Amino acid sequence: MEFLGKHILSVSQFDREAIEKLITVADRMKPYANRERITKALNGAILGNMFFEASTRTRTSFGCAFNRLGGYVRETVGIENSALAKGESLSDTAKVMSGYSDIIVMRHPLDGSVAEFAKSSRVPVINAGDGSNEHPSQALLDLYTMSKELSRFERPIDGMRIAMVGDLKYGRTVHSLSKLLKLFNNISFTFVSPKQLAMPVDIIEQLIELGHNVLETDNLETGLANVDIVYQTRIQEERFPTKEEANKFRGAFRINRYAYSQFCHPTTVIMHPLPRDSRADANELDADMDEHPNMAVFRQADNGVLVRMAMFALILGVDEKLSDYESPVNWTVLQ
Amino acid sequence: MEFLGKHILSVSQFDREAIEKLITVADRMKPYANRERITKALNGAILGNMFFEASTRTRTSFGCAFNRLGGYVRETVGIENSALAKGESLSDTAKVMSGYSDIIVMRHPLDGSVAEFAKSSRVPVINAGDGSNEHPSQALLDLYTMSKELSRFERPIDGMRIAMVGDLKYGRTVHSLSKLLKLFNNISFTFVSPKQLAMPVDIIEQLIELGHNVLETDNLETGLANVDIVYQTRIQEERFPTKEEANKFRGAFRINRYAYSQFCHPTTVIMHPLPRDSRADANELDADMDEHPNMAVFRQADNGVLVRMAMFALILGVDEKLSDYESPVNWTVLQ
Amino acid sequence: MEFLGKHILSVSQFDREAIEKLITVADRMKPYANRERITKALNGAILGNMFFEASTRTRTSFGCAFNRLGGYVRETVGIENSALAKGESLSDTAKVMSGYSDIIVMRHPLDGSVAEFAKSSRVPVINAGDGSNEHPSQALLDLYTMSKELSRFERPIDGMRIAMVGDLKYGRTVHSLSKLLKLFNNISFTFVSPKQLAMPVDIIEQLIELGHNVLETDNLETGLANVDIVYQTRIQEERFPTKEEANKFRGAFRINRYAYSQFCHPTTVIMHPLPRDSRADANELDADMDEHPNMAVFRQADNGVLVRMAMFALILGVDEKLSDYESPVNWTVLQ
Repeated sequence: MEFLGKHILSVSQFDREAIEKLITVADRMKPYANRERITKALNGAILGNMFFEASTRTRTSFGCAFNRLGGYVRETVGIENSALAKGESLSDTAKVMSGYSDIIVMRHPLDGSVAEFAKSSRVPVINAGDGSNEHPSQALLDLYTMSKELSRFERPIDGMRIAMVGDLKYGRTVHSLSKLLKLFNNISFTFVSPKQLAMPVDIIEQLIELGHNVLETDNLETGLANVDIVYQTRIQEERFPTKEEANKFRGAFRINRYAYSQFCHPTTVIMHPLPRDSRADANELDADMDEHPNMAVFRQADNGVLVRMAMFALILGVDEKLSDYESPVNWTVLQ
Repeated sequence: MEFLGKHILSVSQFDREAIEKLITVADRMKPYANRERITKALNGAILGNMFFEASTRTRTSFGCAFNRLGGYVRETVGIENSALAKGESLSDTAKVMSGYSDIIVMRHPLDGSVAEFAKSSRVPVINAGDGSNEHPSQALLDLYTMSKELSRFERPIDGMRIAMVGDLKYGRTVHSLSKLLKLFNNISFTFVSPKQLAMPVDIIEQLIELGHNVLETDNLETGLANVDIVYQTRIQEERFPTKEEANKFRGAFRINRYAYSQFCHPTTVIMHPLPRDSRADANELDADMDEHPNMAVFRQADNGVLVRMAMFALILGVDEKLSDYESPVNWTVLQ
Repeated sequence: MEFLGKHILSVSQFDREAIEKLITVADRMKPYANRERITKALNGAILGNMFFEASTRTRTSFGCAFNRLGGYVRETVGIENSALAKGESLSDTAKVMSGYSDIIVMRHPLDGSVAEFAKSSRVPVINAGDGSNEHPSQALLDLYTMSKELSRFERPIDGMRIAMVGDLKYGRTVHSLSKLLKLFNNISFTFVSPKQLAMPVDIIEQLIELGHNVLETDNLETGLANVDIVYQTRIQEERFPTKEEANKFRGAFRINRYAYSQFCHPTTVIMHPLPRDSRADANELDADMDEHPNMAVFRQADNGVLVRMAMFALILGVDEKLSDYESPVNWTVLQ
């Protein structure tokens, strides 16, 4: 897979080499993210950050990543008053909007919309979520995080044991993540969910065919035993026909410090795509885990900026030139 | 007409010399728009991009134009929560907001509002649309596009033959465009619309008085014959008392590849202010025209950025200094 | 009080030395605000300008201030679609969003929310208004304005006589301002309001205890006599149970040129936090005062940018380095 000048629409575009390239370039972003130095590699470039469906953190993460590379960000949020609402085709929108920027990040509520838009765009497009379909930068930042967290224990992704917990039927992130992980060798997947929300059969079949191990269970204790990483997900209420239906499964897969100490190996890393529901009745991932050294969820969010910086740098061809445009940080960074 | 430090509120401010100046400066913007070079002529300047009525493309076009000249953009979208909704006068809003930027672009749903705002503003104001009244940058980019498209056939605007098609009664763009074109010599106007949506009589009388030719027709075939440019417009549903009323006129003036090949001279240029309605029942301007070399609608949208860059550069007095602040493009531009 | 790396959440953090430091640094911002020079002291820094409650002018004032120091601004407006609405805790939002910027400005409808957010933020947070609780930058710009306006008559803030007029019970700005002014010596406060909207007793008691003079009255003529500054406030309709209740007090404390000439000393300065209601029945602060040389309300709004620039510069430690990163203004500034 080439990055230069290409759209990033789906995790299925990625091969293992591309993933490893992305990880290498993301690592190179740390001094800029840590505010040791500034780079202006994208000096004068414009990102069209088009969120036809609102998402504060994904939008801000992409925008921040572009600013940290020295570029400008022009944003659109919401769909109500846009031309799309007046019957404009995605193709027309793409032909017009792609004249306003050097690269586009797009989120849209409809499955397939971003790929359709990209077909008519004259600049590269990154899919930041198209309905229930794809959100590749999330899966890539998850994989980057796994790589970094495992390396603390000197382990590679190959041979990793991962438990994915929660709503595995409707969860876009766990599907995409599985599709990326299948490119590695000998992964042990434990899918922990109520039977009604199990991982789709086609994904499981693919994993087995490629030589990975798959265990399905609806028991949290069984699921958490002997894994390197627990990837906890939110019950996506909006995917259920009724709130009552959604609430039935709330709490059955709650992770907190007690469950961790009882069921998990002491080096098990906890991940979560966020946001998590922290209301009293949420029972998803308790805040009492927050100070645990293996609770990686906020490092995971931070990594999102590194991975998005890497995507921009690779697509726009500045990944080898970052240090040519460096300058010192003028202000005081306290940490 | 002077540009330096002036508001641009109406096409009626423009004389022919000003239009030609604007075209010259817009041409100078091409290397920056084509990403051959970067300019930071407006380094440190702030645009207040205030859209009290949403318009994704016009807002982004202005913002992108300012970024391409090296300036910052601060934006406001919508009116619901603004001080205007709490009874603040436009004069107060202007006195406050004009302290926050070096130039303001403003769209507002009320006719005359931008001019009223400009009276109290301490920085130059560009009208980006005030209700049904004016949207001068649209007319100027249309005129710039005509100039460029005609020059492909080595023709000037003087003596040009143009058909304006669609809703000519309520269409703000065709009114403004006619007011600009009347400054040129010997234009032949063909106004193609249902009688109920005809071009206002006062505009027609002015054109005739100035020696231009005017033909009115409700027949598309007659209208399209022997013209250099067809300016197609959308049926603005929101201008009609009911949707039913609007729908009566849908489709009667549909342009597609068949109509083009039957009725138009092979060098006739097709323009449209966009967005166009691409729904199955729209019958406005079919996508089968999109690959035609004389379909200029997307070049027209691109030209909007050039013309808006020129407006900013002229008003802020950097039009002769763009190359003093140039730097190379660091990233890879594929086209 | 230290500024470097600190949150600014409340006026109660400030001692007199900090206020004077802020005034000194705000003065230093004038050449940049007046466009005599540009500074890029915050080159590459990112402001997270998070307005979970909309406020066009406060948001734009902060954003403009950051741009004028050379930094980037990433914005969020509104709360409907944010993760907060899906049950995310403010602590989680803070942990994630503080990874996206170098400093955060936050407005939120709930009292105490910004302080709670700041506890989990890894970067400094400035409170731009949390419900009815605090809005420290408003009080600081008011104080800065008083200092500058009084200095025209060669008077200090110590010993100043101020009338605060209007809704003193629910008015967040007059409470905060009183808390700042109490740090000075021998201020004479006249609180002019209907009895039902009087200044809270605890604030009055504090002022008296510290040796300030307090007079309460519901008579405008009495209130305006013999004061250096009149601080007029809006009747905050949204604080009343019904609109009828709010309207009862409209107009009783109207200031216009007639009232000014009858009741005020000719050097009395008029201030107002804006926006003011300019509808015919508002009776708040008439536009006939606008050209009066002692009408300071628009200078007050301008000062907001200077004070916010000073806050950013002090917190990020560039207040002594502004001129190290200067460049000339490339464009033409007409005034």
